[in-house]
Amino acid sequence: MQQPKNLTPVSQLGEFGLISRITRDIVLRNPTTIKGAGDDAAVIECGSKCLVFTTDMLTEGIHFDLVYFPLKHLGYKSAVVNFSDICAMNGVPKQITVSIGLSSKFSVEAVEEMYSGINAACEKYGVDLVGGDTVASASGLVISIAALGEAVKEQITYRNTAGKNDLICVSGDIGASYMGLLLLQREKKIFLESPGVQPDFSDKDYLLRRHLLPEARADIIRMFQEFKIKPTSMIDISDGLSSEILHLCHESGLGCTIYEDKIPMHPVARETARELNLDSTMVMLNGGEDYELLFTISQSDYEKIKDVQQVSIIGHMTDKEKGCYLSSKNNVLHPLTAQGWDAFLKGK
Amino acid sequence: MQQPKNLTPVSQLGEFGLISRITRDIVLRNPTTIKGAGDDAAVIECGSKCLVFTTDMLTEGIHFDLVYFPLKHLGYKSAVVNFSDICAMNGVPKQITVSIGLSSKFSVEAVEEMYSGINAACEKYGVDLVGGDTVASASGLVISIAALGEAVKEQITYRNTAGKNDLICVSGDIGASYMGLLLLQREKKIFLESPGVQPDFSDKDYLLRRHLLPEARADIIRMFQEFKIKPTSMIDISDGLSSEILHLCHESGLGCTIYEDKIPMHPVARETARELNLDSTMVMLNGGEDYELLFTISQSDYEKIKDVQQVSIIGHMTDKEKGCYLSSKNNVLHPLTAQGWDAFLKGK
Repeated sequence: MQQPKNLTPVSQLGEFGLISRITRDIVLRNPTTIKGAGDDAAVIECGSKCLVFTTDMLTEGIHFDLVYFPLKHLGYKSAVVNFSDICAMNGVPKQITVSIGLSSKFSVEAVEEMYSGINAACEKYGVDLVGGDTVASASGLVISIAALGEAVKEQITYRNTAGKNDLICVSGDIGASYMGLLLLQREKKIFLESPGVQPDFSDKDYLLRRHLLPEARADIIRMFQEFKIKPTSMIDISDGLSSEILHLCHESGLGCTIYEDKIPMHPVARETARELNLDSTMVMLNGGEDYELLFTISQSDYEKIKDVQQVSIIGHMTDKEKGCYLSSKNNVLHPLTAQGWDAFLKGK
Repeated sequence: MQQPKNLTPVSQLGEFGLISRITRDIVLRNPTTIKGAGDDAAVIECGSKCLVFTTDMLTEGIHFDLVYFPLKHLGYKSAVVNFSDICAMNGVPKQITVSIGLSSKFSVEAVEEMYSGINAACEKYGVDLVGGDTVASASGLVISIAALGEAVKEQITYRNTAGKNDLICVSGDIGASYMGLLLLQREKKIFLESPGVQPDFSDKDYLLRRHLLPEARADIIRMFQEFKIKPTSMIDISDGLSSEILHLCHESGLGCTIYEDKIPMHPVARETARELNLDSTMVMLNGGEDYELLFTISQSDYEKIKDVQQVSIIGHMTDKEKGCYLSSKNNVLHPLTAQGWDAFLKGK
């Protein structure tokens, strides 16, 4: 391919910069398109209901390493990350298509193994695998899944609708997936240097499972229905807590303060961060791939949510002018920055 | 990745064999899923309407060669092949998501060029680009598009509903895209051997356009509405006429006879086949990537369609026991075989 001079490398813009360049000229033409690009999923009106529509692509060597990623887990995770996007719109996943690009090293049995993981995820979440494409790839495995979900129009939760003083909440705990990834990468390195050595993952099961077999928080969506809570905004944590909070603030035109001591981290993740000489707060802010839900609720919903075990209130939205801050344990304010996972910047 | 012995190479099954292996255990759980895998698109009920849902993946070095495939054209074609699948269900394309995997050689400007083609296709077909994913790829470009279309439930046209004695019809002309591809490959070879030589494409514009800038036959779908024709079965020609006819026969449990002298080929494609010492009938049967519509109609609709310029009647459906045949110009019957384009078998 010809490469004239003065071109901009993609790494200079990063993923979000590139996305804003390629989406800036988009024109929406159909009245059934309620929301296009710019949220966890698009929203399409369909009779009295709405469909949410999303897609994710995973590429070998960037999103996963087959040295330590079992194909069945990979299939499961590829489906779940899409279900998570549907949940982040307050929707219920219903159908997926699965496209895979396969290099010649893959056997039929390997492909079946991967699909057994996709089918297991579909079974667990009540989703139908309704089609896809199976193509050759000149090198490496590529998985691209598109998902459709159902939602009631009035219940759909966007990123740009948080209000000032709303409470910022997060489901489950965060940072564990990234710790799992670091452990897997460390053991791969040891394995490559000393092939006979067995990996030492004693007591780290939780971290590995969080990385290799994440779940979408469909249970939180059901809790919203049960407790009659409509979040004022929501996003799933794929890139990292800090990056996702900044999305909610930016899209809603607000600032925020979150509190270091309120961010939920699993004890094993915290302990592992210490072992690896990492700052656990940095891990929580920037780790990514937890697939927990980050959402805001109106203060009037505080009573409904305060005793929900799987939800932590970590801060509140403020005026835009106040900026976006982390308040540390010793009450020092640190500006939040988006150091989330951005594959294009990794090589920098 | 570990590769134990006794594994089956994907090339041994081919694309269709692999698809039937990975789809055989699929369970559909949602009542809104009217049709899952096995047609040009899935069908999802949504209030009083239906949505059709499809996806296609294109990989560098397999589906396109960037030496001769302009990125804008590639973007256009990637979108159009999905619109064609929606048309093949008798639907109207409405929304797409676009996922791309980019290796580091791609500049922002190159990505924008590709999206300008996608946007041009969306504009022409009245489709909204509503989201996607933009990821790094360890090598080569991957484009995966998912499309949604609208259709009236009663008008949706499947592959498995052709009737005995139905007329087999094809839109436009076929074989030209494959001739375009062969010319581009020939000129690439000449260019690599003698870099100074300019490609000679005089009078071959039609063939190149058919390969690089195909169109989906949304006009034929509108014609069906206007003339109140409901095809009894339909598929789009992506792999090759022979392969697609066998799909309709197999799915509908029927045989067929098609007539060599009725298959429409453009004069330039026929002349080019002669120049390249290729049998033009073989090119028509097996060429692929024409994105024309192959459909069957009831004999009672003959009067409605016989004068439609863009449609040729090329044969009829028969009993399954009679088999699937091409009747040659000298009235000899040749069994039809699926030698369509199958990337996994190419290397054999």
